[in-house]
Amino acid sequence: MSEQMCEQRRERLRALMREQGIEALLISHAANRYYLSGFELHDVQLNESAGRLIVMADGKDWILTDSRYLDAARRLWEPERVFIYGADAPEDIAKLLKGLVPGKTIGFEARAVTLEFYEKFAETLAGSGCRLSKADGLVERLRVIKDTEEIRRMEISCRLNQQMMEWLPGVLVPGRSEAAVSWDIEMFFRHHGATELAFTSIVGHGPNAALPHYLPSKDALLEAENLVLVDVGCRLEDYCSDQTRTFWVGEKPTERFKKTLEAVQEAQHKAIRAIHPGVLACDVYKAARGHFESLGVAEAFTHGLGHGVGLETHEGPSLNGRNKTPLEPGMIVTVEPGLYFPEWGGIRWEHMVLVTEDGCRVL
Amino acid sequence: MSEQMCEQRRERLRALMREQGIEALLISHAANRYYLSGFELHDVQLNESAGRLIVMADGKDWILTDSRYLDAARRLWEPERVFIYGADAPEDIAKLLKGLVPGKTIGFEARAVTLEFYEKFAETLAGSGCRLSKADGLVERLRVIKDTEEIRRMEISCRLNQQMMEWLPGVLVPGRSEAAVSWDIEMFFRHHGATELAFTSIVGHGPNAALPHYLPSKDALLEAENLVLVDVGCRLEDYCSDQTRTFWVGEKPTERFKKTLEAVQEAQHKAIRAIHPGVLACDVYKAARGHFESLGVAEAFTHGLGHGVGLETHEGPSLNGRNKTPLEPGMIVTVEPGLYFPEWGGIRWEHMVLVTEDGCRVL
Repeated sequence: MSEQMCEQRRERLRALMREQGIEALLISHAANRYYLSGFELHDVQLNESAGRLIVMADGKDWILTDSRYLDAARRLWEPERVFIYGADAPEDIAKLLKGLVPGKTIGFEARAVTLEFYEKFAETLAGSGCRLSKADGLVERLRVIKDTEEIRRMEISCRLNQQMMEWLPGVLVPGRSEAAVSWDIEMFFRHHGATELAFTSIVGHGPNAALPHYLPSKDALLEAENLVLVDVGCRLEDYCSDQTRTFWVGEKPTERFKKTLEAVQEAQHKAIRAIHPGVLACDVYKAARGHFESLGVAEAFTHGLGHGVGLETHEGPSLNGRNKTPLEPGMIVTVEPGLYFPEWGGIRWEHMVLVTEDGCRVL
Repeated sequence: MSEQMCEQRRERLRALMREQGIEALLISHAANRYYLSGFELHDVQLNESAGRLIVMADGKDWILTDSRYLDAARRLWEPERVFIYGADAPEDIAKLLKGLVPGKTIGFEARAVTLEFYEKFAETLAGSGCRLSKADGLVERLRVIKDTEEIRRMEISCRLNQQMMEWLPGVLVPGRSEAAVSWDIEMFFRHHGATELAFTSIVGHGPNAALPHYLPSKDALLEAENLVLVDVGCRLEDYCSDQTRTFWVGEKPTERFKKTLEAVQEAQHKAIRAIHPGVLACDVYKAARGHFESLGVAEAFTHGLGHGVGLETHEGPSLNGRNKTPLEPGMIVTVEPGLYFPEWGGIRWEHMVLVTEDGCRVL
């Protein structure tokens, strides 16, 4: 993430802050932090932040972190605006903010701070005259529209995923376990430059494919003449890909497999044809669902149609039946209809789609 | 995680709930959820839960999750106590609780829910007569003391880590990058049964070793006659290991390297000798720090001495200068003193130590 890109993003964020009268915005969500600063894409653990940012209306932005990251932050940021907090991070950060913007409005992300953090933070600010204002979704409004460089990165991440899918049938050998195949996939990604998986791989054989969030098992072995569902993604140059294919292991796919696959792929085609600037997210979902309804199998389509993808695997906009967000050029969404039958298995097929000025393009 | 183990843990938790008058305890922290139920060790993303638990005073406990996990939850739990929430999870969960324990006290983890979740949750409960009570640390009080089976798993996880460290010098070849070595380490772990890394590996060469949370770089190549710090861990049978060694690449370690390593190892010995039931965590820290002070290098020891480790890499108790927690048999902590000199590099050395009835044992 170049310094200049991050600076431009913070400038755009400042314009949104001005609309909301926010003088200082505390960024706690890890991917938002990284998007705006290039500092640490991941937190240490779910309950352990690697640091936060303060984006200032006056342009003098801060990185806040603990002493372990002091040198890493200094390599990236003007040292006089690297703030090291101690064990009482919420208090230390609140005190810094009181000094920076006395009596002004401080924005923060209610979705990215714990109740415990918030209470200590708010208590320390009490009586200071500073006003706290929830600013969830501001950075996400920027992140949802990918710029040229982000699209380039998403394209190469997606391309590696597709290369892997082309290579994969050779290792889908009867007798191998789902877990072994899953590790082959991970190694393929890593040996071709990915820094990590984008998410825990799903490799589900036979009835296991009916579980949309199944974990590959060491004990579940591929059988000849059965299906296997593979839903995997990699992170390449920071950006996530997410692809699903359902393979037939063997030479003689059953009629049921062929018919179900055809239904899923046709639902996907209909959804993709519906994607253009201005279409509501829910209407794209309905294009796929409508096809399943016409076939009388809509009950077996048990999840949303897709989601935005970028620095995180799951971002906005969500393509579900309730989301009335209109799609815009620069959004990248997955389109992944599926049909699941507990005793038999499931089929899902997934593409990543970029919304363009005049329609869309499958990556 | 066997069903029986999880049940016993929930029984012990119920005893703690009774002390606090809690009728129903909402568990949101992923590792706590897994510890108590065996359901999903990881959340999907930092901002996306895989599910929650309700532990009930009356013993009729619930798994709450979204529709993607319905079958996975049913494979594990009595189907009539699997609750599927929709897009408005906090509201749905609050309504369930209102029905289960009308007018009673509901415990929850303020460190593991976002402010947004809490506000929607509390709002839905308002007027119901239910009282909300923060119950942070209750499950952690159980988790901090490892039982026999957990100790066995920690031992094999730690043993694999040490095997890797014995194998590692062979791949520490001048000209190879930190990132390549880091991937070798990850493959070693995975090929020997680990399911994943316990945390992002640190492989820091020369001055990079002075950054306690350094990320391995593709562009930083090992040089002959210089140091490399390796801080890595694996997850084996669910449990994390965490080990640091600092190697000399080459035949002629400098006097400075030898002296610094000796200082670090002696500080570690002193700390380990101080570990026994009843000693305060801060006094173990001081045993190491005191040694550095006697050598006049305490300024270069920039972090805590260690931390608990188990299902998560970072758990309680923290071995820092302020923690007055007395150590107890069954606790497992890292002891990892280090000395860091920005222009030169750093040396850290780490063991995992089990507190026993009569002292301690290095794993």
